[in-house]
Amino acid sequence: MDEAQVVVGYKTYLELIEPLLTGQDVVASGMKAEVKRCGLAIDRARAGARVALVSSGDAGIYGMAGLVLEICAARGLQVAPPGDERSVDFYFQVIPGVPALAAGAALLGAPLMHDFACISLSDLLTPWETIARRLELAAQGDFVIVLYNPKSKKRHWQLEAVRDLLLRIRSPQTPVGIVRRAMRAGEATVIASLQDLLDYPVDMQTVIFVGNSQTFAYGDYMITPRGYLAKYRVGEEMPMEAGRRSSDA
Amino acid sequence: MDEAQVVVGYKTYLELIEPLLTGQDVVASGMKAEVKRCGLAIDRARAGARVALVSSGDAGIYGMAGLVLEICAARGLQVAPPGDERSVDFYFQVIPGVPALAAGAALLGAPLMHDFACISLSDLLTPWETIARRLELAAQGDFVIVLYNPKSKKRHWQLEAVRDLLLRIRSPQTPVGIVRRAMRAGEATVIASLQDLLDYPVDMQTVIFVGNSQTFAYGDYMITPRGYLAKYRVGEEMPMEAGRRSSDA
Repeated sequence: MDEAQVVVGYKTYLELIEPLLTGQDVVASGMKAEVKRCGLAIDRARAGARVALVSSGDAGIYGMAGLVLEICAARGLQVAPPGDERSVDFYFQVIPGVPALAAGAALLGAPLMHDFACISLSDLLTPWETIARRLELAAQGDFVIVLYNPKSKKRHWQLEAVRDLLLRIRSPQTPVGIVRRAMRAGEATVIASLQDLLDYPVDMQTVIFVGNSQTFAYGDYMITPRGYLAKYRVGEEMPMEAGRRSSDA
Repeated sequence: MDEAQVVVGYKTYLELIEPLLTGQDVVASGMKAEVKRCGLAIDRARAGARVALVSSGDAGIYGMAGLVLEICAARGLQVAPPGDERSVDFYFQVIPGVPALAAGAALLGAPLMHDFACISLSDLLTPWETIARRLELAAQGDFVIVLYNPKSKKRHWQLEAVRDLLLRIRSPQTPVGIVRRAMRAGEATVIASLQDLLDYPVDMQTVIFVGNSQTFAYGDYMITPRGYLAKYRVGEEMPMEAGRRSSDA
């Protein structure tokens, strides 16, 4: 952040990183101004400034990285990573972070030890039919399912539809982890079951983890087994040399 | 890391964090000794030590977090987050990191702007039929597909099977990003197409990103559009007020 001359972002996120700012030119914009915000960051970069565009969690997962590149492609702007020797309009780099799915999973214990599908429930840019079809296929494949953007102030019916759709394929007792504001003020974590999914507060800053058929709750944790213990038949006693008997990973 | 008294991990990962070690008791173990390694970390924690179990990328995504909790559940050990007031065998916390899918996505540009499925090709603990079925369902759902553990020294035929399976559903020109050793010495990134997937070196430290039907390559970047530009019809000229016209996210 110290290297940036201009910092652009959604105002809520800029407030979160305020302690990191060291006198940069800060450009805050409101929600739903994504295209404008990215265009502005691009314009400042083209004009020669070192610009940091701030996105939440990880800019590369449902974040602003793609929109910047999409706008570059639409405008025919040439971009390349810093250090590249070609002549470009500006240098561009995505700095990965801890995505909400990783922060939420950490708070829940270990829901993502096996294959998972990550699905946004926002139907602003994606038809609901596409979202519903993906949910159904993910459930059929016994993926752990991570739900981004489960609900907003104006969008409230989807989560019930998701529950009903998943209940046709998964057990009502399937563990469901609900994580609000992971690693931020107001953090709250609940492990519920699929049938009780609607009993807990959920908003745009919530990520929901629906277990696969093997996921179980243990104390305050949600665990999706990878299969080590079943394979090595580990129970009360630990086979200390189990690893050496295994074949290749 | 400073707070740990004992550091346990796979030896390759311990080498990576060597500069962070400050005199801790270090216990390195080899590959495939996962059960032993986690059991050892648990035993040291029960004996009262502050133990850090090191996993690669993110311990919560195909990492060691789950195995520790599974062993606790199998042994009936009580664990809770630090600060919890219940009497437990030891306190346990998963510290999230930058998962390989986020590090790889950042190097490729923006492949994960839309729904994705993450699938490990390792059939050591999962039957190949399950893996193949998940691949097929993910392809049918037009998910971006992230492949972990695509190949190992002893396991080499899966990637060809994956290519053939996906080619029955997706275009041969589908962009595929291949990232080896993201953010480490030896890092290499290639954007290929699905039909050319087998032409590039791939190993256990490689993550592969198969685009969805909308993903495109632009310069050295791989972009999966979220849909903003299509919705707001942004092209050469930027509608600076586009965001205000949008409905709720």
